[in-house]
Amino acid sequence: MLENLKIGILGGGQLGAMLMRHAIDFGLRVSIMDKDPHAPCSHYTSSFFCGDPASFEAVLEFGKDLDVITIEKEAVNIKALRQLEKQGVKVFPSPDTIEVIQDKFIQKQFLLSHNIPVAPGEAVQGKNDLYQYENKLPVCLKKRRDGYDGYGVMVLKTKEDIEAAFDAPCVVEELVDIKHEIAVIVARNEDGAVVCYDPVMMAFSEDKFILDYQIAPAQIDEGILKEATTLAEKVADALQLVGILAVEMFVTKDNRLLVNEMAPRPHNSGHHTIEASTTSQYEQLLRAILGLPLGATGLHFPSLMLNVLDNDALNADRPGKLKRLLDVPGAHLHWYGKEGRRAGRKIGHVTVTDNTIENVIAKAELIRKILN
Amino acid sequence: MLENLKIGILGGGQLGAMLMRHAIDFGLRVSIMDKDPHAPCSHYTSSFFCGDPASFEAVLEFGKDLDVITIEKEAVNIKALRQLEKQGVKVFPSPDTIEVIQDKFIQKQFLLSHNIPVAPGEAVQGKNDLYQYENKLPVCLKKRRDGYDGYGVMVLKTKEDIEAAFDAPCVVEELVDIKHEIAVIVARNEDGAVVCYDPVMMAFSEDKFILDYQIAPAQIDEGILKEATTLAEKVADALQLVGILAVEMFVTKDNRLLVNEMAPRPHNSGHHTIEASTTSQYEQLLRAILGLPLGATGLHFPSLMLNVLDNDALNADRPGKLKRLLDVPGAHLHWYGKEGRRAGRKIGHVTVTDNTIENVIAKAELIRKILN
Repeated sequence: MLENLKIGILGGGQLGAMLMRHAIDFGLRVSIMDKDPHAPCSHYTSSFFCGDPASFEAVLEFGKDLDVITIEKEAVNIKALRQLEKQGVKVFPSPDTIEVIQDKFIQKQFLLSHNIPVAPGEAVQGKNDLYQYENKLPVCLKKRRDGYDGYGVMVLKTKEDIEAAFDAPCVVEELVDIKHEIAVIVARNEDGAVVCYDPVMMAFSEDKFILDYQIAPAQIDEGILKEATTLAEKVADALQLVGILAVEMFVTKDNRLLVNEMAPRPHNSGHHTIEASTTSQYEQLLRAILGLPLGATGLHFPSLMLNVLDNDALNADRPGKLKRLLDVPGAHLHWYGKEGRRAGRKIGHVTVTDNTIENVIAKAELIRKILN
Repeated sequence: MLENLKIGILGGGQLGAMLMRHAIDFGLRVSIMDKDPHAPCSHYTSSFFCGDPASFEAVLEFGKDLDVITIEKEAVNIKALRQLEKQGVKVFPSPDTIEVIQDKFIQKQFLLSHNIPVAPGEAVQGKNDLYQYENKLPVCLKKRRDGYDGYGVMVLKTKEDIEAAFDAPCVVEELVDIKHEIAVIVARNEDGAVVCYDPVMMAFSEDKFILDYQIAPAQIDEGILKEATTLAEKVADALQLVGILAVEMFVTKDNRLLVNEMAPRPHNSGHHTIEASTTSQYEQLLRAILGLPLGATGLHFPSLMLNVLDNDALNADRPGKLKRLLDVPGAHLHWYGKEGRRAGRKIGHVTVTDNTIENVIAKAELIRKILN
């Protein structure tokens, strides 16, 4: 059965590669499209297509003989996906879901219309519109489309920052007084069955808005955590999601939950599920889109996930540092094998597991010293 | 670093596919050769070569630009591997190690020469030599070369069985009075560092000598288990192994350990390490052959691994049965995606994990009912 399904993934980065890892577990045949001919996934399938997932023609050509298409990035051509659906290809998450999430302002409006609390924000067309906020600084400025890994997000503190701001359609958000940032991964299948992973706590690098590390389970009040999973399930239902969805939330200083952003695909905040959960987020996505029962989401043990960024300290001795890292028991290296160098880029991650959260944190500190 | 290494695997079956799964974790570039153009691995690399790993020319051509070659089956061309070594390609396990293990009689002689206890056996050239055992029946007959998954093993009970026996160079073994069959996976790197996994207990199907299920940790006397790991480490040292080695042993009714067979590659008895151990046997193999530190081998929880064979009961409703199986929490399906049908062939496995061995066994019984 499973080997007869032709699956397609739009996007061939590390998320796609980790999805391939789990596609192997199910004996699946997977085609992958990415515009970079050297993308990580280009090595891991006999069916790699070099093409832009944002191109109508490329997506239509890629998908025409597939049974099911999924995504590992949001910047995909919705029109082509709708056309493919008409031709009988299953597209999960649905083009409607992806379209809502592609635009951060529409995403926010959608959540508000379903009574889901969000960080307040307004749409602007470009830089000229920003001067009206001069007396309301600081604010957070986010490009409406195509942001990822902190690209497309900046904080405006001064009039000079406005001069240097993105000149593109953006959302301007007031800076929320945040106590914690958490994320919940939720999965939903065609039958409407929903399962949630335990919320994780995230810490971002101060300057780059790129996820620095993540701890699971989140070490915060149980009541808030329960509320967070209820909220994530509500969002999945509202979107009529088929697939998986990462819901990033703020916990404000007065203990309110606000949905910050969503991603309808495997997410950095769920990498730990590979080692720490009964069912990884990647297997869960495959289950959800292939009409298989959703898997158990329980955490086996505490974990901490640390992103590895391309930087001078690491590059001074990559082989030596990676060897020392691999000598830490319970340090699980995921090295993305990206070609070339670009400072600040995610090039891997390490998931640390152990029996207690204290041990996990101690090991993570050791690993951070090794890598830096 | 890791992404610049060109790795090759001889053999492209399910063991190779599971090795690919872990090669993705390290961002490796992997070429794979198998004589079957539709082998499971053919889908999971951009660098698949259709060729016979037993062919001198094919292996030489396959390996000429690689940095490191390893195997997922023993039936490979030793002469070509020796030639590649001279050309600077690292071959792990070494051609010497593979050559010793390729021939079950030489393997036995090797073990005896290192004072490692084995089931007593004698070499015969063909069927005509078997009549001398007519008065010593029953005996176990094993082809010296190219046996796998029970192919190449038979028990001779009567003179009629001799008539129907293999007419090939074989080993004739006396039938040992066995209490248990266990296996130990041991890893060793170029520096001579050695790590062992906990022994597992195996149960074979009565008629086919194919592994039916496997329990980890083995539920037998601690002293014997300790002795078994010591023995496995001794074998790894004797072979000057670089890579991983599965050592299958008999525990006799009088509590002696006898080495039955060895395999210098990932092995069916170690599949459970994917979910149940800190480091899977596949990652461990990659660590051993790439000069990386060996990984921790601890078991997180009890597990039972059940082979899934191609049979009529399963084929009556593969989709329905697989769905019911995937609905059992902690049942980890590995479906090999093999093409075509052949009764009795291994087409997948399920690793069941839970907190107690009793729960694991209960779940495994449920799964067996589902599959049959």
